[in-house]
Amino acid sequence: MNGAESLVRTLKAGGVDVCFTNPGTSEMHFVAALDRVDGVRCVLCLFEGVATGAADGYARMADKPASTLLHLGPGLGNGIANLHNAKKARSPMVNIVGEHATYHVKYDAPLTADIEGTARPYSNWVKTAKTAAGIADDTVEAIVAARTAPGGIATLIAPADTTWEEGAGIAETPAIPERAKVDDKAIAEVARILKSGETAVILLGDKAVRAAPLEAAARIAEKTGARILGETSNARMERGAGRVAIERLPYPVDQALAVLADVKHLILIGSRDPVAFFAYPGKPSRIAPEGCNIVTLATPADDQGEALERLAQAVGANRTLTIPGRERPGLPTGALTPETIGAVIGALLPENAIVCDEGVTTGRKFFPLTHAAGPMDWLQLSGGAIGVGIPMATGAAVACPDRKVVSLQADGSAMYTVQGLWTQAREKLDVVTLIFSNRSYNILRGELANVGANNPGPKALNMLSLADPDIGWVNLARGLGVEAMRAETAEELADKFKACLKAKGPHLIEVVM
Amino acid sequence: MNGAESLVRTLKAGGVDVCFTNPGTSEMHFVAALDRVDGVRCVLCLFEGVATGAADGYARMADKPASTLLHLGPGLGNGIANLHNAKKARSPMVNIVGEHATYHVKYDAPLTADIEGTARPYSNWVKTAKTAAGIADDTVEAIVAARTAPGGIATLIAPADTTWEEGAGIAETPAIPERAKVDDKAIAEVARILKSGETAVILLGDKAVRAAPLEAAARIAEKTGARILGETSNARMERGAGRVAIERLPYPVDQALAVLADVKHLILIGSRDPVAFFAYPGKPSRIAPEGCNIVTLATPADDQGEALERLAQAVGANRTLTIPGRERPGLPTGALTPETIGAVIGALLPENAIVCDEGVTTGRKFFPLTHAAGPMDWLQLSGGAIGVGIPMATGAAVACPDRKVVSLQADGSAMYTVQGLWTQAREKLDVVTLIFSNRSYNILRGELANVGANNPGPKALNMLSLADPDIGWVNLARGLGVEAMRAETAEELADKFKACLKAKGPHLIEVVM
Repeated sequence: MNGAESLVRTLKAGGVDVCFTNPGTSEMHFVAALDRVDGVRCVLCLFEGVATGAADGYARMADKPASTLLHLGPGLGNGIANLHNAKKARSPMVNIVGEHATYHVKYDAPLTADIEGTARPYSNWVKTAKTAAGIADDTVEAIVAARTAPGGIATLIAPADTTWEEGAGIAETPAIPERAKVDDKAIAEVARILKSGETAVILLGDKAVRAAPLEAAARIAEKTGARILGETSNARMERGAGRVAIERLPYPVDQALAVLADVKHLILIGSRDPVAFFAYPGKPSRIAPEGCNIVTLATPADDQGEALERLAQAVGANRTLTIPGRERPGLPTGALTPETIGAVIGALLPENAIVCDEGVTTGRKFFPLTHAAGPMDWLQLSGGAIGVGIPMATGAAVACPDRKVVSLQADGSAMYTVQGLWTQAREKLDVVTLIFSNRSYNILRGELANVGANNPGPKALNMLSLADPDIGWVNLARGLGVEAMRAETAEELADKFKACLKAKGPHLIEVVM
Repeated sequence: MNGAESLVRTLKAGGVDVCFTNPGTSEMHFVAALDRVDGVRCVLCLFEGVATGAADGYARMADKPASTLLHLGPGLGNGIANLHNAKKARSPMVNIVGEHATYHVKYDAPLTADIEGTARPYSNWVKTAKTAAGIADDTVEAIVAARTAPGGIATLIAPADTTWEEGAGIAETPAIPERAKVDDKAIAEVARILKSGETAVILLGDKAVRAAPLEAAARIAEKTGARILGETSNARMERGAGRVAIERLPYPVDQALAVLADVKHLILIGSRDPVAFFAYPGKPSRIAPEGCNIVTLATPADDQGEALERLAQAVGANRTLTIPGRERPGLPTGALTPETIGAVIGALLPENAIVCDEGVTTGRKFFPLTHAAGPMDWLQLSGGAIGVGIPMATGAAVACPDRKVVSLQADGSAMYTVQGLWTQAREKLDVVTLIFSNRSYNILRGELANVGANNPGPKALNMLSLADPDIGWVNLARGLGVEAMRAETAEELADKFKACLKAKGPHLIEVVM
């Protein structure tokens, strides 16, 4: 078997059996090998940012990596923004990036670029294969790098001759090391703090916002009076009906500062010492107040759920948690606003949905309105690089074909990777996309004032407007093969959302605000 | 004035008065400054690859740089593929990339990334501004780096506080050094070769394919019997009626090898020693035959037109060139094929058009069919990173508002940067786009065999197919605000192309193959 086939077979043997592809000439042997290897699902994307964002969504839901297949430096470049998001989400991913044959690189052909240099800022592991005989071993290294906690982006660059020359067969992926256990002293110290009666917040991130760790955290809070809080952005939170409801640290810096203002102890479990998303003149970069005692109990590489369980034992939080029944909001009427849209979603979201939330300004109100819906998984933009929503929904639907995916999508952000709708259509993925059509980069209107650029004139405001012309989302989606419709009132949105949830396959509703 | 305003005023004073933007929070002071500075045209793009591709198209037609405004590492990442193309085209460009405030970077906020590392592989010059007082001087350095021959990509990273703190006013851009003149000895040596009667090809690239240098080259060829040939891909060739008609080195490696098979001397003027676009098993990387004498007369940094004039004098090619009248093809009938499409274009292309050619496999036949049309400028994909066509047409139309831009566009390539249609609509740019809808990455079907991956199976072929679902280009374009229609026969294409050429503003025709 040639190098390409040994690469594909090694991926599959290592549990990486989905590939989001956008190939070119240098990747043709990889593509050809797919026909000789059963059990690898290949999903074509029409733009590389869709491939990397889909691999992120897949990893979040499958808890294992997909691979991507990308064409040289520029193809990898197109995937960078969503690699950035995936890296910040600690999603495992194995990128296979084609390269010119080893002997051809020195001729500086038109597509030649520094691929390792391109990959490095957005990868946890980068390697260029040297030979076809060695590429299976390289692939194993990539899988191990991607899957070792806390999860990372592994980029394997495959020169064309390392795919077409004779390979060495399949290499076996070794067992992945378990997550580290937090030591007893750390547990005891945090237990002491929590029992002291001083104001404490437990900030939960990463795997600590899955259902079981959240329940342990809630028991600890109930017992000790500590508050629990999620990070502003979470790769995957298990929430909704029957689950612990928590609030998140707000995005706006002033609100975030207010939430933590009086905190004496901040306990980090899977989370980071919180910082402002951006710097603002006269505002601090760090969110925790001066003098706050910040203790990292468990990093994202640690076993966060186990740490929370032991901490619960240490503080004597043994009582089974009663999660109160919550009431869904009633169906609203009238104009479409963040509040009425959130209420429609909160009222109708089905059980076991996967929600991909790139709602940006429109979406800020959705969280409290959806505590009673579900239960569901809630996936957010993690690295701030807008354009993850449509691809993430695509990948999540590939990972979980039996679940409904609801994609909550700001219009400006949607335009970065709108090509992902076509992949949803081709793969007949069960995704309902709500486009929040406010025809502006609305977040930036606020940010102008926040950074002290007040009284913007017409030229500045024009750079934040998506009107003139309005984007016709129904046409756009239909052009990409997705059934689409418009809703202009809350009643219309409720009717159409219901119908789309009942139907199978990709649908899009333009929510006109 | 703050740093942002001193940056914008310095750009304008240095002749950089167009900015293709996709800003975020860290760029808000730049955006706000636009209202305080007259005479800077700001063009909003909904994706950064549109901004960088448009700046490339602008630079090719204006022969001076535009600026781009990009948001942090991921925003720059989205622009990489078309930066790659622009760098290979030697288009001057000044990228302004926002960054967190200098003191905020260390906190590793969600959008933090290694921006310099991201920029370096795709820039000729990279710098991070340190202070608001110094940013005007940094801007001058960037302009000089971009404009100094052969032209380059300058990336200035602007931390937010270097834009909002007090700046030092406007810095003056010095005179840009003239292009170097080729030395007499080199001219004499090439003249000797050309007069020797041995088989010689003059390979023209860069500025040597503008009208005047081409005429000098044609006189030399007429006098000496040397052949003249263009590079496979050219940033901007001045061609068509009343101008010298030359052929280009073919893209397929076997055809390219055949064209140069018997050549004893290969004279490079603005061109590079030709290499195969990709490596193919058993085929050479270099196109010139073994033992061929390769002489670089003028590099892209040199004054190529002046070198050709002196060479013409040296070989005694003084006779004024008579450029023969040529006949446009007749309007074809029947099915839409590369040949009939090329004939329609050749028959109807108006005088003084700017043609942006990302026709890929469909477009390979267009060149000979359009020798009689025009005169026109013909712009090609220069770095092989598909997705330049729509943005390039956008930028060319901004540079030349009084000229008709005709965008010849393969369907697969169009999908990478389709968002550019919206910018054409917003700016009411006079662009007619022909989408060659063959519903496949057709070039890769050939490349599978070329790299020795024969007998592809259904999974491989599915990765090269854009069918299922077909992309509805009329819907897609309308959704982005561009008038659109379909043509299914050569007659229909001729009628609709005529109508679009007559109308003003952006139009798109889906050419169904």
